[in-house]
Amino acid sequence: MNAQDFDRWVQASLNAFEAALDDLVPAGAPAGLGEAMRYAVLGGGKRLRPLLVLASCAAVGGDSFAAMRAACSVELIHAYSLVHDDMPCMDDDVMRRGKPTTHVAFGEAQAMLAGDAMQALAFEVLTPDTGIAPALQARLCSLLARSAGHDGMAGGQAIDLASIGKQLDEVTLRDMHRRKTGVLLQASVMMGAACGPASTQATQALADYGAALGLAFQVVDDILDVTQDSTVLGKTAGKDQDANKPTYVSVLGLEAARALAQQLRAEAKAALAATGLADVSHLSLLADSVVERDN
Amino acid sequence: MNAQDFDRWVQASLNAFEAALDDLVPAGAPAGLGEAMRYAVLGGGKRLRPLLVLASCAAVGGDSFAAMRAACSVELIHAYSLVHDDMPCMDDDVMRRGKPTTHVAFGEAQAMLAGDAMQALAFEVLTPDTGIAPALQARLCSLLARSAGHDGMAGGQAIDLASIGKQLDEVTLRDMHRRKTGVLLQASVMMGAACGPASTQATQALADYGAALGLAFQVVDDILDVTQDSTVLGKTAGKDQDANKPTYVSVLGLEAARALAQQLRAEAKAALAATGLADVSHLSLLADSVVERDN
Repeated sequence: MNAQDFDRWVQASLNAFEAALDDLVPAGAPAGLGEAMRYAVLGGGKRLRPLLVLASCAAVGGDSFAAMRAACSVELIHAYSLVHDDMPCMDDDVMRRGKPTTHVAFGEAQAMLAGDAMQALAFEVLTPDTGIAPALQARLCSLLARSAGHDGMAGGQAIDLASIGKQLDEVTLRDMHRRKTGVLLQASVMMGAACGPASTQATQALADYGAALGLAFQVVDDILDVTQDSTVLGKTAGKDQDANKPTYVSVLGLEAARALAQQLRAEAKAALAATGLADVSHLSLLADSVVERDN
Repeated sequence: MNAQDFDRWVQASLNAFEAALDDLVPAGAPAGLGEAMRYAVLGGGKRLRPLLVLASCAAVGGDSFAAMRAACSVELIHAYSLVHDDMPCMDDDVMRRGKPTTHVAFGEAQAMLAGDAMQALAFEVLTPDTGIAPALQARLCSLLARSAGHDGMAGGQAIDLASIGKQLDEVTLRDMHRRKTGVLLQASVMMGAACGPASTQATQALADYGAALGLAFQVVDDILDVTQDSTVLGKTAGKDQDANKPTYVSVLGLEAARALAQQLRAEAKAALAATGLADVSHLSLLADSVVERDN
């Protein structure tokens, strides 16, 4: 697959994804709640997690309706976590994806509720009355719940919160980021794979791919935080440094962090080769785009 | 069933429930998160929702392992909503179940994360690797997600938020409370019923029972808010009045609110009679305890 074919696939996938998400996030939820939810999740973001779900499903020849629902659910979890993260009691950030954060636009109470409702909606979209086999619904809910909760994203946030102003070694930093970002990225890959008949070997190798890619994503995030300005990032640059948060750059230095990102990309591609699947080109090119991105 | 038998059933159910919940809420979650989650959900509260799940499951002769998981999941949702509700940007309350609220004890950021992680955990406990048939897992997740989200609890909170200082008519007040409290109480009944082989007739009648009981619960809450002091309630009394929130008492007056509670109890019992189930005594006595409670 060449770069042009990949770009075409990304564009077509994103179009279908945005339409599906727009359809699923209720405009009519009461008292401004729907408006806040839609503001927080529609029309912005790189949509890396949904692309991982769809690419992984395609690699195993899976059910595309279920995968699209799964793509929407992981993005809802990701978007809700950003809404809560940005609030004054957490990172206190006012800018996200180039526009005011949800609590700035709608107030703190509505932002907290919107985040809460988005998490519930993530599980609602995985459990429609028809269209997804019940056993697959259960599997997708299981993967999502475990990646979002205490042992995944929320647990990583708690470590993050406790680490401000502290020195962390690379092992602790890696554990924090594995939970905070990596586990949901990996779950995206696993949820896509669950939509099709993947062998045990392929499933394990895809888990390895997801783990390497998840960590690479965070390493690159830390690099961009110090090398890019806010306009390019669409969020406040230099934030982690200012908050005295440990990052891969602060722990390893910029050059070693760049080398680590390259090493993780190689690990991700080696894992793809070990899947035994015929066409993993989308997943491979997504790993490239994670490491080579500039925002 | 006499009152003594019912009390014995309640006590045995609560003992088993507390042990199950204690087992499921992780002490080991990182950086104090597990401690905050356990503080928020263990060792307190009336546990009405879990009792409804267990009583409903018993009425249909359902799977008690699945029902216990469902009981834990609804209580996790209820408890997380209290944690977020009590925060300064919402109701700003400092006392709950006779002790400091979670954000007072652990800080706002940790309280928000604990609530978020508790919602994820609710879906995690419904989707174990073994012990609950996948189709039942999917059904339970579906019921829980819909009752917790924009069309249920979170939507009701948003209406509540927007209603402060406003006059509401009884229809709007009823819609707010149906979403905010009623839908999760009703879902507790439905999740219990889903654990067994309930007929369409029984399922519909149990839904009616849950709707009447859910509304009765809120009417009684509003009555107690003005007739009891904080020590008996274990939370700040007179709060709604002080916040200028519309309640059943402010809209209907105290006597009419009391009459409505009695009417809803009668509706709940009529619905139970329409289930066609052999033994609905636990559900019937739970309706009594909701209307007759003093805290």
